[in-house]
Amino acid sequence: MTTLQQLISDLERFATERDWQPFHTPKNLAMALSVEAAELVEIFQWEDGQRPFADYDLAQQTATRHEVADILLYLLRFCSVTGIDPLAAAVEKMRLNAEKYPVETAKGRAKQVGNVAD
Amino acid sequence: MTTLQQLISDLERFATERDWQPFHTPKNLAMALSVEAAELVEIFQWEDGQRPFADYDLAQQTATRHEVADILLYLLRFCSVTGIDPLAAAVEKMRLNAEKYPVETAKGRAKQVGNVAD
Amino acid sequence: MTTLQQLISDLERFATERDWQPFHTPKNLAMALSVEAAELVEIFQWEDGQRPFADYDLAQQTATRHEVADILLYLLRFCSVTGIDPLAAAVEKMRLNAEKYPVETAKGRAKQVGNVAD
Amino acid sequence: MTTLQQLISDLERFATERDWQPFHTPKNLAMALSVEAAELVEIFQWEDGQRPFADYDLAQQTATRHEVADILLYLLRFCSVTGIDPLAAAVEKMRLNAEKYPVETAKGRAKQVGNVAD
Repeated sequence: MTTLQQLISDLERFATERDWQPFHTPKNLAMALSVEAAELVEIFQWEDGQRPFADYDLAQQTATRHEVADILLYLLRFCSVTGIDPLAAAVEKMRLNAEKYPVETAKGRAKQVGNVAD
Repeated sequence: MTTLQQLISDLERFATERDWQPFHTPKNLAMALSVEAAELVEIFQWEDGQRPFADYDLAQQTATRHEVADILLYLLRFCSVTGIDPLAAAVEKMRLNAEKYPVETAKGRAKQVGNVAD
Repeated sequence: MTTLQQLISDLERFATERDWQPFHTPKNLAMALSVEAAELVEIFQWEDGQRPFADYDLAQQTATRHEVADILLYLLRFCSVTGIDPLAAAVEKMRLNAEKYPVETAKGRAKQVGNVAD
Repeated sequence: MTTLQQLISDLERFATERDWQPFHTPKNLAMALSVEAAELVEIFQWEDGQRPFADYDLAQQTATRHEVADILLYLLRFCSVTGIDPLAAAVEKMRLNAEKYPVETAKGRAKQVGNVAD
């Protein structure tokens, strides 16, 4: 089974073999990541948002999977060059979010609605 | 040690406890993810791109770690509601990228420069 | 009445007075513009999309107006440093779009739905 | 000479002729605008940022002009459906920015560097 750490190593080798490290600055990788996020948004931009994902046609589902992969790959590459541990960062943020959005007050509060992260 | 699968479960419970599932459509989560990606971009927008990340001040480093976490959390939440396996998708995409950018032709080619994903 | 050209001049003076020109590269301004676009997206990310804009609360309407302004300002600043004429570019693109999406075939076609630009 | 107001009218007719108004909600148009902004970012993502725009190859310059157009067109379409006057909004925001970033304190301040809008 592939792990995040293994993907990070594979991406490092992939970039090194192609002499791409000089381009992989945090700034450039943040840009590339945001471009992939926009490509995910593009798939859904004219959708009404209520159709179950399983009802999307196969081409859209495949495109979605590829964009998810692209985002994860650039995120891991970004973590690699900045030295950030993505899982540790996520666990820390989950804890902060639990404090920021207590169940009692967050429930049904329109203002905060849906914020898994902020 | 926390795993991706465990984070996905924690996020599901977090959303359920707050009655946020109706807002967590693939469309809305793709939007939220792209907003977090932009917040990461914002940290670097006036940087010249050459300064080592370790030289950034502590507040910027912390903000960066939080944005990385937000992106990962929304990505996992998106995977949760669409049924996409992020690691399997990344492995599949890595294989496609290796075919698309062979070492020999990709090396130093300006056009493709730096594309870990596309 | 203020014109686009006047705004462009005002922005140039604003940047010059603050010694900000070195930061206003096309790359950095494209990033800044995308961050503002994401801030506009953020306002609508948990909305169902059907509520008329006039029914939004005043704070949301004001925030929306400010984000529209920010996007236009960065777009004009980008045009200023690249020498692009935004109105001429838009007229040219409208013509290309009319060819790409003829009324007869575009009407009701799900695939192209809603693309004013592409 | 084409004006912003004329472009807004042309876009309205363009959308009406194709039955696209139902898709042109503020939410969807904000998404589409952010996707176009990302396409502009993509052109610059591996650039070092110092090369003068006039030195870019012709294909890149043309692509840049088209993305600028797409952003402006979606911004105007967004203004059309929300009733926002883009020029008035920009003038108002310029005034707020002048108060927020006074010349004396903003000059050379790293924190605020380059913020034409915020």
